[in-house]
Amino acid sequence: MTRTIVASATREIVIGFDQPFCVIGERINPTGRKKLAAEMIEGNFETVKKDALEQAAAGATMLDINAGVTAVDPNATEPGLLVQTLEIVQDLVDLPLAIDSSVTAAIEAALKVAKGRPLINSVTGEEEKLEAILPLVKKYNVPVVAISNDETGISMDPDVRFAVAKKIVERCADFGIPAHDVVVDPLVMPIGALGDAGRQVFALLRRLREELKVNTTCGLSNISFGLPHRHGINSAFIPMVIGAGMTSAIMNPCRPQEMEAVRGANVLAGTDKDCTHWIKTYKDYKPGAVLAPAADSASAGDGAAVPGGGRRRGGREARRSVSG
Amino acid sequence: MTRTIVASATREIVIGFDQPFCVIGERINPTGRKKLAAEMIEGNFETVKKDALEQAAAGATMLDINAGVTAVDPNATEPGLLVQTLEIVQDLVDLPLAIDSSVTAAIEAALKVAKGRPLINSVTGEEEKLEAILPLVKKYNVPVVAISNDETGISMDPDVRFAVAKKIVERCADFGIPAHDVVVDPLVMPIGALGDAGRQVFALLRRLREELKVNTTCGLSNISFGLPHRHGINSAFIPMVIGAGMTSAIMNPCRPQEMEAVRGANVLAGTDKDCTHWIKTYKDYKPGAVLAPAADSASAGDGAAVPGGGRRRGGREARRSVSG
Repeated sequence: MTRTIVASATREIVIGFDQPFCVIGERINPTGRKKLAAEMIEGNFETVKKDALEQAAAGATMLDINAGVTAVDPNATEPGLLVQTLEIVQDLVDLPLAIDSSVTAAIEAALKVAKGRPLINSVTGEEEKLEAILPLVKKYNVPVVAISNDETGISMDPDVRFAVAKKIVERCADFGIPAHDVVVDPLVMPIGALGDAGRQVFALLRRLREELKVNTTCGLSNISFGLPHRHGINSAFIPMVIGAGMTSAIMNPCRPQEMEAVRGANVLAGTDKDCTHWIKTYKDYKPGAVLAPAADSASAGDGAAVPGGGRRRGGREARRSVSG
Repeated sequence: MTRTIVASATREIVIGFDQPFCVIGERINPTGRKKLAAEMIEGNFETVKKDALEQAAAGATMLDINAGVTAVDPNATEPGLLVQTLEIVQDLVDLPLAIDSSVTAAIEAALKVAKGRPLINSVTGEEEKLEAILPLVKKYNVPVVAISNDETGISMDPDVRFAVAKKIVERCADFGIPAHDVVVDPLVMPIGALGDAGRQVFALLRRLREELKVNTTCGLSNISFGLPHRHGINSAFIPMVIGAGMTSAIMNPCRPQEMEAVRGANVLAGTDKDCTHWIKTYKDYKPGAVLAPAADSASAGDGAAVPGGGRRRGGREARRSVSG
């Protein structure tokens, strides 16, 4: 059974085929959020804190942390800013974090201060990327998101994307990184531009699960780009990817419709035992009501928390003690 | 490619793997609706007419017609009442109909007056039922819903349910009824009572599609029986069954959340070409708005209408002329 362990200082989460869907909150990311970028540059982290608390209350399993405030010389700004952002968030909420950067030095700087067992987001099949990131993945004994593109870009042929994913998993093995620490992103295209985008990703997810036996993730809202009422498309997409075997997604947990789809699909996939979480969340649901994010705050997130915490103790022990 | 053709006097619909999901409107059914039963017994069909128009406007592909007003001597009341109900509805809307009765004489009476190519709902694997219904299916050259239970009841073992479905398909073949005219209902259990109900049906749907190559249907809302906020469970279930290969369901099309899930899943399964129907339905969608059923009235239903009508012409010609 494939189990990817992530952890904060005090909480360990399992990503796996038999686990509730892992919702990686996407909000702490200045890409396309000019106001947030300006605040972060000024050293104002009020929005970051608000986003962290709101996503946790809304039921996020993990939080993605991105500090890419500028395309101009990110090497200069991003390591310090990513460290600062990550430390603020990990002191505020107890969710495991994903360290999200295209700057290798920023990822390493964040790994040095991260508590628990963060997820690295991400490596691709590009040779230079593999050589830069995989040694860090090994050294810090953390899991990594593997995006299915390489030097040639993103292939429109799902067989090529599968081959790229397979290559990354194999390269990881060369570095001593097990497949259960590789979370593959098969890349989701907008269905409005590519009518086959849904079927492509469903087929890819099955192959990734059955042939490579890896956990999977995606930037979920890509699927609905350009269409009206995107939440409706996203909310239909979530149960379909869960049914096809996807085990996590980078998405906005503050959207009640999408989170309802996640919770419903967990019930139907059999990962919400006795429908406990569903009943707790919706027992007083009134038709037409929009569920406030706070409704989940008492449940400490929707993820599969493993009691006992998960501080990374210099190597494999932490993982071994949980995954056996 | 499996294609089940159903038709009203003027409209032909294909149920198939490459077609938009076929929504069979369930409202015209007095089971559990005492007021409707009382009206129908009195010869008052105002609610029937209202339900027919509302379901058509809400985007139903077909309408189920059930006149089971009493458990006491249905043989006496049901043939006449079913004929009356069916004639009223087929004069009012141009959607194909499903003739839904447990009384063989009622089914035959309805078949005699039905225009187009109705669906018979249903036969089971019970020997007596097979002997009663299959000759009618053959004689009138219509498709039939095959429910996966037999004399021993509903098995909790999905392998047994598959075996019953297979037996019915084989018995149909003995009668000269092709597999593409058998729409299997694998039987959906409430997930609140049977935690494995979702995974059971997803696995069954794949086998039915891949091994028996048949279209499939179910009583959709069974899945959420007993749970709070049933629409949320139903709306997650719809994309999952569509992803697993289900091609139709008996459900309430007047529920905007469920119909949104159907339309979203059609987009993602690639059966809403260029997202045309989605864009038409939701282009002016306002967040938080509840889509009025009338929003679909201009689109003449959500189904895959085949121009040219589909009157049943004494045999296979109608079907052959469409499915080639």
